[in-house]
Amino acid sequence: MNDVSGPANGHGLTAAAKVDQDRLWNRHMQMAEFGAIPGNGVNRQALSAEDIAARHLLLSWAEPRGYEIAVDDIANLYVRRAGTDPGADPILTGSHMDSQPSGGRFDGIYGVLAGLEVLDALDDAGLQTRRPIEVVAWTNEEGSRFTPGCMGSQTFAGARNIEDFVDIADADGVYFGNALDETLAATPRAERRPFGFPVAAYIEAHIEQGPILEDAERVIGVVTNIQGLRWFNVEVTGETAHAGTCPVGARRDAFQAAVRAVQALNALTADAEDKLRFTVGKVQVSPNSPNSVADNVQFTIDLRHTDLDVLNEIGDAFPETCRAAAAPCDATVTETFRKNPTRFDAGVVDVINAAADALSLPNMQMPSGAFHDAGFLNESCPTAMLFIPSLRGVSHNVAEYSSPEQLADGARVLAAALYELANRP
Amino acid sequence: MNDVSGPANGHGLTAAAKVDQDRLWNRHMQMAEFGAIPGNGVNRQALSAEDIAARHLLLSWAEPRGYEIAVDDIANLYVRRAGTDPGADPILTGSHMDSQPSGGRFDGIYGVLAGLEVLDALDDAGLQTRRPIEVVAWTNEEGSRFTPGCMGSQTFAGARNIEDFVDIADADGVYFGNALDETLAATPRAERRPFGFPVAAYIEAHIEQGPILEDAERVIGVVTNIQGLRWFNVEVTGETAHAGTCPVGARRDAFQAAVRAVQALNALTADAEDKLRFTVGKVQVSPNSPNSVADNVQFTIDLRHTDLDVLNEIGDAFPETCRAAAAPCDATVTETFRKNPTRFDAGVVDVINAAADALSLPNMQMPSGAFHDAGFLNESCPTAMLFIPSLRGVSHNVAEYSSPEQLADGARVLAAALYELANRP
Repeated sequence: MNDVSGPANGHGLTAAAKVDQDRLWNRHMQMAEFGAIPGNGVNRQALSAEDIAARHLLLSWAEPRGYEIAVDDIANLYVRRAGTDPGADPILTGSHMDSQPSGGRFDGIYGVLAGLEVLDALDDAGLQTRRPIEVVAWTNEEGSRFTPGCMGSQTFAGARNIEDFVDIADADGVYFGNALDETLAATPRAERRPFGFPVAAYIEAHIEQGPILEDAERVIGVVTNIQGLRWFNVEVTGETAHAGTCPVGARRDAFQAAVRAVQALNALTADAEDKLRFTVGKVQVSPNSPNSVADNVQFTIDLRHTDLDVLNEIGDAFPETCRAAAAPCDATVTETFRKNPTRFDAGVVDVINAAADALSLPNMQMPSGAFHDAGFLNESCPTAMLFIPSLRGVSHNVAEYSSPEQLADGARVLAAALYELANRP
Repeated sequence: MNDVSGPANGHGLTAAAKVDQDRLWNRHMQMAEFGAIPGNGVNRQALSAEDIAARHLLLSWAEPRGYEIAVDDIANLYVRRAGTDPGADPILTGSHMDSQPSGGRFDGIYGVLAGLEVLDALDDAGLQTRRPIEVVAWTNEEGSRFTPGCMGSQTFAGARNIEDFVDIADADGVYFGNALDETLAATPRAERRPFGFPVAAYIEAHIEQGPILEDAERVIGVVTNIQGLRWFNVEVTGETAHAGTCPVGARRDAFQAAVRAVQALNALTADAEDKLRFTVGKVQVSPNSPNSVADNVQFTIDLRHTDLDVLNEIGDAFPETCRAAAAPCDATVTETFRKNPTRFDAGVVDVINAAADALSLPNMQMPSGAFHDAGFLNESCPTAMLFIPSLRGVSHNVAEYSSPEQLADGARVLAAALYELANRP
């Protein structure tokens, strides 16, 4: 521990200074070749040939450095730079390498490559750490090919068991269990790890996927929490009729009732602070014919807020709000999923904040609007996240973009923060 | 013409009295066996095997009576009861025998079977008429299998040419021209007629397909006109975003913009008289994912009114109304179809009205909300329609229902009206 005799952030800044912007950018571009789709997009779904190729490429950078490679039974992939204290639990950093079917070049993969960049920067700076630092690529965060998402981090954290997932099939009828076996077979040299091994702390770097940092002209988001979420299906039932013959006043038009319900929900969810997220993203109308009044409309609600009380109060008011607005049609509201808000560890948040300040990078504390693997790791160990800006907030889209400078700035903060955490007692 | 020496309606009432309610009902039930679907429904699409079977059944009732059978080149099928004046143009009555894919037992076929019932009632009453009375079954009114509809009546009236239709394929790739040849081959004994032969008058009997008669407790609707119609497609364009990360205030949510546009259109089309018909029947949302803000919504507008000025004024205001309401999203409105209002012949309307009054059947003048073959015949000859009630206004649905008494009352009015017209100079 000779190298932590001074203030940790002194050496942390040294490590940050060794972050190589070009290397980090080029690695993103190389990764984006696996599953490349038109418009600079990426289709690299979990446990696919493209995912396996990405794993090989990651290892091709890690192994020449002498980092240790490990996997667990769900193919979470670990790259470990050893520490000086053989008995110390590691500091973990990372994210995921799978993408949406029509995804971008930065969602997920950034957290993995930024983590590797930190290992290489420490290496290039000749710095040691007391604790090992490990980069992890969690399996199947997106849940696009095999539903649900966050399978790797949920299983690591003990929230789910691998047996829950093995019989889940993709759209082509391929089972998760078989795709997993293939993926594990592709990294035969990796040591096999148990789930839930002790971790001293976890930091996940990620693109923001929203416009807040850009709008606020900040370079770094210090993520203090993840919004809670409730999903609902609303079914509105009316009666079909001939568009030409049935007077408007005599109709029970399910689409017009759905419009009234959405208006009422907009009023209910109106938030002057603009912190509450209310989205009707999926709508299905039946019979969906131009000259037939709709007799059935189904729509989804995605409700998110950082405050559990708000989430409960607003969401619990949906059934009555929809019923009242839809009359004389009927409306039923069914909750299909919920996850309560996540509050990250104040100590890890402080370390990230201090690192960004030490690097003089304009930053702000903020919640995460999206789910992340960090939401599950938070149950296992002190956890927080850092965000870098997303151009115009666009994500889950081929147009997703963060600049080389933004990627590197995030990696610099990650380097300083991980160095600090890895040298704490 | 001895039998018209007294007031025509005297003998017309005699003919009406010979309408056989059981015969008429049983014929409907026999016809409904061709293409029967669960729930008492009918799937008897144009020029299908079921349509051909229905034609054969119709002729099996007509030929023993000695009525003359004819077809034209688009397989409009004519059943003629001769008149006493060999040079007189016929009075035409009828409708169509094809149904919607999930249709009922009365739409269309009622007008054909009511017409045949009149011929048989005249026969049974031993009454002759100066003019021939002909029952016609127009080909492909529904347009479900081969689009557009009203092919037979449009071609008869010279609005379209048969060459426009022959290369139209159904969902199985069968061409209209080939299906037409098969249908014509199935009635080899029928004399071949030209299109547009002179007709003295046309009356079409039809189920109302709306609730007006039922609500007004009337037995007969005397149809004075058909609403005009304009169809529009509205496309709303916004920007997709992550439902969790993008603040509501920063969104250009195409679905929320479409909801605002529909609200604005509702306000624009509000009609205290409830005569204007405004329907948004088809809605498509993209990407249509629960956790993605919509970037594209397309919806249809079906606008109908009896007054051309209203149709023009309201419809012409749609583009600006949608644009203003959809901001900051974009909205474009495209008109895809229009048909101006049809005004039926006042003389034929009066004859139907007088017949209903003479039979002491509660009646009312009303517009037709739906299209009918009569809309095209109106261009060729004096035309009007009569409606009978539809249970709860339900049509284009297996639950479509009119009672045996309602069917017979309509046929009685038709008998009296046709007898009157067929004996006029």
